[in-house]
Amino acid sequence: MKAGIVGATGYGGIELLRLLTNHPQVKAITLFSSSQAGEKFENIYPQFRGGESYVLHDLEPEKMKEDLDVIFLATPSGVSSQLTPQLQGSHAKVIDLSGDLRIKEPATYEQWYKKEAAPDGTLGNAVYGLPEWNQEQIEKADLIANPGCYPTATLLGLGPVVKEGLVKPDSIVIDAKSGVSGAGKNPNPITHFAHAQENFQIYKVNQHQHIPEIEQQLTIWDDQLEPVTFSTHLVPMTRGIMATIYLQLKEGMSEEDLRQKFKSYYEPQPFVRVRESGGFPCTKDVYGSNFCDIGLTIDARTKRVTIVSVIDNLMKGAASQAVQNMNLVFQYDERTGLAPLPVYP
Amino acid sequence: MKAGIVGATGYGGIELLRLLTNHPQVKAITLFSSSQAGEKFENIYPQFRGGESYVLHDLEPEKMKEDLDVIFLATPSGVSSQLTPQLQGSHAKVIDLSGDLRIKEPATYEQWYKKEAAPDGTLGNAVYGLPEWNQEQIEKADLIANPGCYPTATLLGLGPVVKEGLVKPDSIVIDAKSGVSGAGKNPNPITHFAHAQENFQIYKVNQHQHIPEIEQQLTIWDDQLEPVTFSTHLVPMTRGIMATIYLQLKEGMSEEDLRQKFKSYYEPQPFVRVRESGGFPCTKDVYGSNFCDIGLTIDARTKRVTIVSVIDNLMKGAASQAVQNMNLVFQYDERTGLAPLPVYP
Amino acid sequence: MKAGIVGATGYGGIELLRLLTNHPQVKAITLFSSSQAGEKFENIYPQFRGGESYVLHDLEPEKMKEDLDVIFLATPSGVSSQLTPQLQGSHAKVIDLSGDLRIKEPATYEQWYKKEAAPDGTLGNAVYGLPEWNQEQIEKADLIANPGCYPTATLLGLGPVVKEGLVKPDSIVIDAKSGVSGAGKNPNPITHFAHAQENFQIYKVNQHQHIPEIEQQLTIWDDQLEPVTFSTHLVPMTRGIMATIYLQLKEGMSEEDLRQKFKSYYEPQPFVRVRESGGFPCTKDVYGSNFCDIGLTIDARTKRVTIVSVIDNLMKGAASQAVQNMNLVFQYDERTGLAPLPVYP
Amino acid sequence: MKAGIVGATGYGGIELLRLLTNHPQVKAITLFSSSQAGEKFENIYPQFRGGESYVLHDLEPEKMKEDLDVIFLATPSGVSSQLTPQLQGSHAKVIDLSGDLRIKEPATYEQWYKKEAAPDGTLGNAVYGLPEWNQEQIEKADLIANPGCYPTATLLGLGPVVKEGLVKPDSIVIDAKSGVSGAGKNPNPITHFAHAQENFQIYKVNQHQHIPEIEQQLTIWDDQLEPVTFSTHLVPMTRGIMATIYLQLKEGMSEEDLRQKFKSYYEPQPFVRVRESGGFPCTKDVYGSNFCDIGLTIDARTKRVTIVSVIDNLMKGAASQAVQNMNLVFQYDERTGLAPLPVYP
Repeated sequence: MKAGIVGATGYGGIELLRLLTNHPQVKAITLFSSSQAGEKFENIYPQFRGGESYVLHDLEPEKMKEDLDVIFLATPSGVSSQLTPQLQGSHAKVIDLSGDLRIKEPATYEQWYKKEAAPDGTLGNAVYGLPEWNQEQIEKADLIANPGCYPTATLLGLGPVVKEGLVKPDSIVIDAKSGVSGAGKNPNPITHFAHAQENFQIYKVNQHQHIPEIEQQLTIWDDQLEPVTFSTHLVPMTRGIMATIYLQLKEGMSEEDLRQKFKSYYEPQPFVRVRESGGFPCTKDVYGSNFCDIGLTIDARTKRVTIVSVIDNLMKGAASQAVQNMNLVFQYDERTGLAPLPVYP
Repeated sequence: MKAGIVGATGYGGIELLRLLTNHPQVKAITLFSSSQAGEKFENIYPQFRGGESYVLHDLEPEKMKEDLDVIFLATPSGVSSQLTPQLQGSHAKVIDLSGDLRIKEPATYEQWYKKEAAPDGTLGNAVYGLPEWNQEQIEKADLIANPGCYPTATLLGLGPVVKEGLVKPDSIVIDAKSGVSGAGKNPNPITHFAHAQENFQIYKVNQHQHIPEIEQQLTIWDDQLEPVTFSTHLVPMTRGIMATIYLQLKEGMSEEDLRQKFKSYYEPQPFVRVRESGGFPCTKDVYGSNFCDIGLTIDARTKRVTIVSVIDNLMKGAASQAVQNMNLVFQYDERTGLAPLPVYP
Repeated sequence: MKAGIVGATGYGGIELLRLLTNHPQVKAITLFSSSQAGEKFENIYPQFRGGESYVLHDLEPEKMKEDLDVIFLATPSGVSSQLTPQLQGSHAKVIDLSGDLRIKEPATYEQWYKKEAAPDGTLGNAVYGLPEWNQEQIEKADLIANPGCYPTATLLGLGPVVKEGLVKPDSIVIDAKSGVSGAGKNPNPITHFAHAQENFQIYKVNQHQHIPEIEQQLTIWDDQLEPVTFSTHLVPMTRGIMATIYLQLKEGMSEEDLRQKFKSYYEPQPFVRVRESGGFPCTKDVYGSNFCDIGLTIDARTKRVTIVSVIDNLMKGAASQAVQNMNLVFQYDERTGLAPLPVYP
Repeated sequence: MKAGIVGATGYGGIELLRLLTNHPQVKAITLFSSSQAGEKFENIYPQFRGGESYVLHDLEPEKMKEDLDVIFLATPSGVSSQLTPQLQGSHAKVIDLSGDLRIKEPATYEQWYKKEAAPDGTLGNAVYGLPEWNQEQIEKADLIANPGCYPTATLLGLGPVVKEGLVKPDSIVIDAKSGVSGAGKNPNPITHFAHAQENFQIYKVNQHQHIPEIEQQLTIWDDQLEPVTFSTHLVPMTRGIMATIYLQLKEGMSEEDLRQKFKSYYEPQPFVRVRESGGFPCTKDVYGSNFCDIGLTIDARTKRVTIVSVIDNLMKGAASQAVQNMNLVFQYDERTGLAPLPVYP
C-alpha cells in the first residue's frame, strides 16, 4: 500500500516515517510539507539518510486522494479541520493526529482550541481511534481522529472502572506528567534546555485542551460523571507520559477485584499490560513502544484508588497508535510493524 | 559559635557544611562520621578542598555536648533516636534532620519506619521545626525535629487553608515529585543513571514514611481532617520538589479570597513567596535557596482547588531549613547566612 | 534459526533480545543466565512482557552447542575466555560481545584486563567483527569477537586515513565521550544519578582497556603507527558515543580529497554515513540504530585533521553490530532485522 | 559601593545580581536593560522576588558613570565596543563580560566576531582580567575585559606549562565541552530540550571566536607557540566546562615535576586547585563556585601530557570571575562575596 504523511518534519511525522519504513505492508511513502516543499527530507534531517530518499511535496488534495491508500495528518491544530474535507469521499483513508477532529461538539472545540471547528460532516464521520475501546468502529472507518497523548494514557487508565459505573462522579483527579517532546519542535523559553533541565514545571493548569477530549469519552462510558480535574507537568526528559489518577469508588471493593476488572478488559489487548499487585510502571518501561502499562492500588486508609498509566507520548500517544489504527482499518494484524519490545535502557 | 555536623558525608551534611561555612556567626565547625572517623573530609570529597580543612571525628557524645553550641544530626533514620538522648540536657542545642523525632506517637513511627522509636522523653522535648508555623516554640527549643522534604512543601502549601478549617475533610490528594538526591547518596538500581535518566517513576505508593508526619501537623491545624492521599515520584533531576495539591473546599469562595488568605499568612515570612493570579512556580525557581514558592487556583468547572508548592529538597527540605531553625533558636535574624536569591539557570 | 543469549539480563543482552525478536530469520530465542537461572525474564524486567515469555536457563555448553545455531555471549570480561572453548568445534556459531577474544596477544590482554587470557586456540579462531573492514573473514567465521563500543567509533573514523598510510605516526589523539549505559547496569557512585547528572567526568585516563584493541587494528592497517592517546569521558546521557579524533597528515591534502577517501570506502556500506562539507553528526543522529555517522574537516590554520565519529554504544557499539555480524555469518542481507532509521527525538 | 549591571536579564547578568546581593561591600545595585527598561525585574523573573525590588533602567552613560562605582557589562558582543567609550574617563570602573575588549588586534576581532571592533583607545586601556596571571595589572585597571568561559578553563590549564616554555610549539589540542547555558538564554533548535537532551553535539569546529583569545594569551607567555586546535562540544547539562588538553613537551620530564610546576604557580591562588596524582576533577566539583580544578598526567606510552581543567561557565567563566576582578580593582580580599564551597550534588 501507499502511504502519505502531511507534516512530515514535526516530531509526530518523523516517528511515523520511522514506523512506516519498518512496516511490511507499506510499499511507498510520500512526504508532504507546505512550508518546505521541494526540499529533500534528508537535507533537513541528515540523520534520516540511509534508506530511501524522500522529497517533500506540496499539498495537492485531489492528487493525494487518488494516489494514496492512507494519509496521515501530523499537523498542528487548525490544519486538518480545513484539509480533511478536501480529502473525504475518496479512496484514501485519513488518519488525523491533531486535535481537530476529536471533539464532536464544535462549540467545545472552539472554546478550548480558540480556533474554528471542522465542518459538521467531517466531525460526524471521524471515528475516535482508541483501538482498545473502539475497535469495531475503527475497522469500518474512513476517517480516524487519533487520540491525544494525555487522553490515551488517561482513558486507558480509567476505561475499565468508568465503563463499569464504579466511580464516584465528582472524585476524579488526574495528575499528568509529560516529557518535553510533547511541546513540539519549535523552540521557546519553556523548553529551552537551560531552563527545562533540572526543572519540573506545571503548565496550563485547568486549561489544557485535552480536558474536553478526556471528558467526552468518559461520559460516553458513564454519563453521570462530572467534570474532572486534570493537571499537566513538564518532566526534564524527552519522551514519556505518566498519568497518576486518583478516584473514589461508589462502593467498597477489594484491590484484587479491581485488578481483575482491568485484566478482563485488557488481556485480549496486545498493547496494554496490567501489572500485578504491588507493581507500578515507570515511563521507561514503554520507551519507543506502543505499550500502555498500568498499575493500580486501593489505599486501605483512605479507600481512594490510585491508577498509574504510562505511555511513550510520541508512540502510543501519537505515531504508533496511528499505525495501530491503520492496521485495523486495513484488516492487518494489529501488531504489524510495531516492535514487540520497548527500548531499554 | 561552634557547630557540629554528624553524618557530614551524606547529601544533607554536605549542604549543611556549605551553608555553615558561609554563616557569619559560626566560628568553628566540627564534622563527625562514625564510619569514616579519622579521614580528612577533603580526601573523600576533593571538591570541598579550598577553605578550611576538616577531619572526620568519631562520635563522643559527652565531649560533643560540652564543646559545641549546636549539633546537627544529618543521619539516616534510626540513628538519632539512639544518639539524641545522650546529647540532651546539655549546653548544645540539637537539630535533627532525620525522621526520628518528628512523629510524636511511638507506635506510629514504628509502623511507618519499621524501627524502634526514640524514648518518650526525647520525643516530648522535640519541637517540630517548621519556622513559618512554629516560630515561638522553636525559639525556646533545645531540640528541633527538622521537617522532612515532602512535608515541608506539602504543609507550607496546605497551612493557610487547613488552619482556617476550610477544607472538606476527605478531599486532600497530594501528588508529590522529587529530584533523585532525595534518595540519598547510596547507589541502587532505581537511582542508577541509565535507569533514572529519561524516566519518570512512582514509588512507595500510599506507603511513604512522610505521610504520618504530614497528617500529624494537618490534624493539629484541623482535627476534623481525614487521612490524606499522598504519592511520591522520582523526577530525572538532582534537586527540587513539587507538591501538586488537590482539595475541595467546604464552601465556595473566590480565588482571590483564597490567595489573600495565603498572603496574609506568608507576607511576614521571608522564605515563602505566593504567586499572583495565573502564576505558578517551577522547581528551578527555588534551586539552591531556602524559598518555598506557592501558586494556586480554583477551577471554575470543578470547584476543586489546586495548590502548587515547590522547594529545593536539600535546602528548605533539609539543610537550609535547619540553619533557619538554628537562627531562630539563637535569636539571629532568620535570614542570616541564607542566600537571598536562588541559583538560575 | 535458533539463537541463544548468555548474559541476557545485562544491557547488551537486553538490546540483543529486542533486536532478535524483530529479526525475520530468528525463529526461537533461548536466554541463559547462570546467576538467575530458573527465573522468568519478564519477572525481572516486567517491561519486556508482552511478546513471548522467556525463562532464564542455566548454562549447559554441550546442549547449547547442539541445539542452537548461534550463541551470543553478552557477558562481563573473564567469562567468555572460559566458556568459548567449551562451545567451539560445534554446529553453533559464537558471537562474543565481551573484550575477551579481541586481543590476539594474551600478554596484552592480561596487562590491560588484569585477567587470564583465553587459550591460544580460541584467540586464533576469533575473527574481529568489524563488518565494514573485515567482511570476508566474518562471512567464513565460526567465532566472532564483536568490537568494543569505543573501538567501533574510533576505528570507523580512522580506517580510511590510516589504511591509506596518510597519518603522521605519533599524531593521533582520540577524545572519546560516552553515555552512562556503557558502564553497565551495576550501580556505583560514579553512575549514581545525583552524581552523574549535570556532570561531565573523565575516567581511566590513558588506562582504558579499549586502547590495545584500537591499536591492534590500527597497526594492522599501518604498522608504522605509534601508540595513540585515547581519553574517555562520561556524558550525562544514557546512550551514545562521540569520538573526536585529531591527527596530522604526513603530507598536505585538501579537505575534499580527504572526504572522497572516506566516501569511497564507505559508500558501499549501508551503516556508515559520511557527512558533506561543514556537516558534523551529533550522537542523537544515530540513537537506537546501527549507524556510524562521520564528519571531518582540515583546519586551514593548523593543518590538523578533526574527525567526528558517532554511534549508539549499545547498538553499533554492541548489540546491533552483533546482529550485523550474525547476518554476515549466515549469509543474510546485512541489514536484516536492523531498523533503517534512528529514533528521534 | 554602588554597582550597575547592564544586560541584567541574561544568564551572566542574573548570576552577577545573585553574587552582588551577597557581597558585603556592595550597598546598592542598579539594573539596566535597554530592551526592557521600566519593567520590574521580579516581574520578568518571579523567582528573584524576595529580597530587594529592582526596576530595569534605560542606559544613560553620563549619569551612570557619575553615580556608580563599578559597571558590569553583561551584554552580547557588539554592545560594549560601542558603550564602553562613553563610560571611560569617569569615576566608575568598568568590567566587560563580553568578548568585545579581549582581543587587542582589531582586525582579528573583526575576522572572528564579524563585527566592528572597539576603538583603539578603548582596547588599549582594557586589561585582560585573568586574576591568577594578571593580578598586578588588574589592581591598577579602570577597564577590565573579563575572560571568556572557554579561555578561562583553557588558559588556567595551560598557563604553568606554556609560561615555562616547555611545550612543543605545534602540539596543543584542546577538546572543550560546555553545558548548554553557555549558548545564552535565547531559544534555538540546537538548545531545544528535545534535541539537546540525550545528545552530545560538536559545534563551530575550528571556528569558535574564543580561539584568538586563547592564542593571544598563550603567545604572550611563549611567542614560539603555533596556532592551537580547539574544539567545542555541547553537553546535555546546564552548567560546567571541561577542557581536556593534550600537548607534547619539548623535553621529557616526570609527572611529579610537572605537577609541582602547577602547584608552585597555583598554591597562592585561592580559586585554583590542583589535584594529586591519579586525581581528575569533574565539572560538578566546581558547580556554582569560582573554582578552577585541574588534574594532569603524562602517558608513559606516548609521552603526551593530558591536562583536565574544569570551571562553572557562568561563575569562574563569567560572573564570579567578574566579581573576583572587582575585588582586586577595589583592593578587597579576592575572596569577598565568593562562596568558599561548590554546590553538591
